[in-house]
Amino acid sequence: MPTTDHSSPKQSRSSGEEVLEKFNAKVGQKIEVETVDGLVTAGIVIPRYEHADSEYIVLKLKSGYNIGLKADSIKKIKVLEMASISTKTEDHANKAPTSERKNLLLLSTGGTIASRIDYRTGAVHPALSAMDLYASIPELDEIASIDTEVVFSVFSENIGPKEWQILSEKIIQRCKEKSPHGVVVMIGTDTLAYASAALSFSLIGNEMPVVLVGAQRSSDRPSSDGALNLKAASAFAVNSHLPGVYVAMHETENDDYIAIHSGVRVRKNHTSRRDAFESIDVPCIARVMENQITMTGGRKQGAKKTSDSYKLKSKFDDAVALIKFYPGFDYSILDYIGKERKVKGVIIEGSGLGHISSSAVARISDLTKKGVFVGISSQCIWGHVDLNVYETGRDMIKAGATPLENMLAETALAKLSWALGNFDNVNEIMLTNFVDELTPRIPLSQD
Amino acid sequence: MPTTDHSSPKQSRSSGEEVLEKFNAKVGQKIEVETVDGLVTAGIVIPRYEHADSEYIVLKLKSGYNIGLKADSIKKIKVLEMASISTKTEDHANKAPTSERKNLLLLSTGGTIASRIDYRTGAVHPALSAMDLYASIPELDEIASIDTEVVFSVFSENIGPKEWQILSEKIIQRCKEKSPHGVVVMIGTDTLAYASAALSFSLIGNEMPVVLVGAQRSSDRPSSDGALNLKAASAFAVNSHLPGVYVAMHETENDDYIAIHSGVRVRKNHTSRRDAFESIDVPCIARVMENQITMTGGRKQGAKKTSDSYKLKSKFDDAVALIKFYPGFDYSILDYIGKERKVKGVIIEGSGLGHISSSAVARISDLTKKGVFVGISSQCIWGHVDLNVYETGRDMIKAGATPLENMLAETALAKLSWALGNFDNVNEIMLTNFVDELTPRIPLSQD
Repeated sequence: MPTTDHSSPKQSRSSGEEVLEKFNAKVGQKIEVETVDGLVTAGIVIPRYEHADSEYIVLKLKSGYNIGLKADSIKKIKVLEMASISTKTEDHANKAPTSERKNLLLLSTGGTIASRIDYRTGAVHPALSAMDLYASIPELDEIASIDTEVVFSVFSENIGPKEWQILSEKIIQRCKEKSPHGVVVMIGTDTLAYASAALSFSLIGNEMPVVLVGAQRSSDRPSSDGALNLKAASAFAVNSHLPGVYVAMHETENDDYIAIHSGVRVRKNHTSRRDAFESIDVPCIARVMENQITMTGGRKQGAKKTSDSYKLKSKFDDAVALIKFYPGFDYSILDYIGKERKVKGVIIEGSGLGHISSSAVARISDLTKKGVFVGISSQCIWGHVDLNVYETGRDMIKAGATPLENMLAETALAKLSWALGNFDNVNEIMLTNFVDELTPRIPLSQD
Repeated sequence: MPTTDHSSPKQSRSSGEEVLEKFNAKVGQKIEVETVDGLVTAGIVIPRYEHADSEYIVLKLKSGYNIGLKADSIKKIKVLEMASISTKTEDHANKAPTSERKNLLLLSTGGTIASRIDYRTGAVHPALSAMDLYASIPELDEIASIDTEVVFSVFSENIGPKEWQILSEKIIQRCKEKSPHGVVVMIGTDTLAYASAALSFSLIGNEMPVVLVGAQRSSDRPSSDGALNLKAASAFAVNSHLPGVYVAMHETENDDYIAIHSGVRVRKNHTSRRDAFESIDVPCIARVMENQITMTGGRKQGAKKTSDSYKLKSKFDDAVALIKFYPGFDYSILDYIGKERKVKGVIIEGSGLGHISSSAVARISDLTKKGVFVGISSQCIWGHVDLNVYETGRDMIKAGATPLENMLAETALAKLSWALGNFDNVNEIMLTNFVDELTPRIPLSQD
């Protein structure tokens, strides 16, 4: 790539743009800059606005502050998160938002974001219409033509396998009928990440991006995040052309960029902050700022090729349980859910690499002998389970437990409910990587 | 404080030292530096070694890399984590490690760190003697005179309330008999954070620092972390003069500084990384590098004054359970543990601000009417629960649930076991802040 290009007088670039181009860096990417003085600083390149001095590039630091770096003081730029496929998408989002009008299907299921969408007046709108939406967030009109529907209206702590199925069927049906460019689902944040995982499996084969979005603060508060999240979710849904299920939420406490997370690798990690949602073991997939989408390389390895037999399977079985191990764990709970409650599968959140106490291992054996699937994730959240390192783990494998690599416990529960609802070969399904619910181990330093 | 002091010829300071002193910054602190060019970068000040150029200060960046900043290019330094009370401690650790020999009680309970302590030869030492230790980590001899004892030898997934009690009684007894300057407990990392929470309560009133330490990698691997963790734990135990229970583990993937965490605010957040342990909702308490202790301000608000009736209460009751809520939660599990298992208390990891599904709320009522304590933490891990924001939460309070602010679920389980083992007023105990298991809400931006 040439370092400079002054051939087009209409597009004469500033020295800020030139230095970015020289090092193959783009707006929205996270970069590390080294200056001629040897100073090193890292941040996200933010767009240069009309009023800004064009001799600088501007970085948003982790602290939330912006700093300007004079272009001619820059010795080296290292892109920390590579852009992958964004040019076409960026062009769409930047240059043709209105000329080629996109269709968005916006579904509401309840939660803070749907119940109080009017962020300027503070008025409560429990029901949702396109008119309401345009009235409260006029910018949505620039992004897409919106078709809305209330699927149900509940707090997300009351959403479970039954509601995942209703929602999946609704999306499949409406996408067939109307072929929108994308789908956005407004949902409460409490169990948003469980629902995004569930839909990630039931919508395998669906060709439109589906983006789940919520709000951590209602619109009657100055810090409401719903409107910005919804705009970013909508922009990504209609412009990304990436089939799959995603979550769009604030990446920082600031009202600047919204992270697009993989539906199976995201977790709510704070009770109240606006940037409560984090991608686990991977970077987020993209970043949306001012309707501009930048891919951040979070889906490098891609998902497996999927046969038709796994596509659009929308059933969920609720005979599943998620049990967290703890010191002094009462292993009779495993007997109880197996015998009395007749669960067909259980996910155990073990400690560390996935362990449970030696005394509880025999109970795994009782369950697996009866055909109950026992999957092992870790309560550590980050990292892979490994039942081959210590004696306890090897005993768990002998008892029939299935270690689930780095599948999040929440994702594992949703996948198990889906696997039991649609297939006989549950063990095989649970260990097949469909949508990056399993990702490779990051090599450990010095090993 | 004067910006420079050249009065003592023996201690002539370099310009690097001067600029640190000018802004009241110290080695080991995390600082943000602004240069005359307007560049801003943050990192931890690391010591200047003999061979280093004294005109620079050296920062360790989050990435693990070091950068040198020329002293005369520095415009401003902002200390991000204040040192609080460390001068005396630092002097002890730096200048008099051998002249005033300290006594350390080193207890072993099993786990990776105790079973394979010889990090150079790779030999396995399941039993532990002071001789073994000095042989494999000679530097320990410079830190303290060590008295060792094997309390038990089990993987930490098999450590529960019964073992917490044995360990507490052992520490209380040995501290009375021998008055060591500090105590270090080697333990498996799987349930280390549960045990550190348990001991934080049972050792209220114990006057010596007690530091729990583990290893994420055994000593036969080049990346073994056990020796460095143990050295730092020992240095902090004998030199800090801070009664309380702490955890010493790698703060980064590098072999540089070891974080000292509060025993009640720490969590194992990665299955395998050496920096798996993190302080939650607070900074770590101190940082140890090359036997030098720097306080990082993690315990600002201090613990409550504690009456004698809460001191050295070492009993733990195992009639407790930790239940994680999930979508489609089978609430009959609450009935089962109440009626069949006769638990006296349960901690529920709710979603978001602490919610469980509406259908399960009646089960809380059944439990609390029978006198079972029901405490609510959040599976989000970070942040405070709040049952006053939404209807579900208010119903949970009406049903008798006790929201536990930002007490970690793991800490809450250990505290409940301790409260039931020693006191009648469990509700009051659970809501009393003894050792920073409850910390204030961090004000949210723009609210």
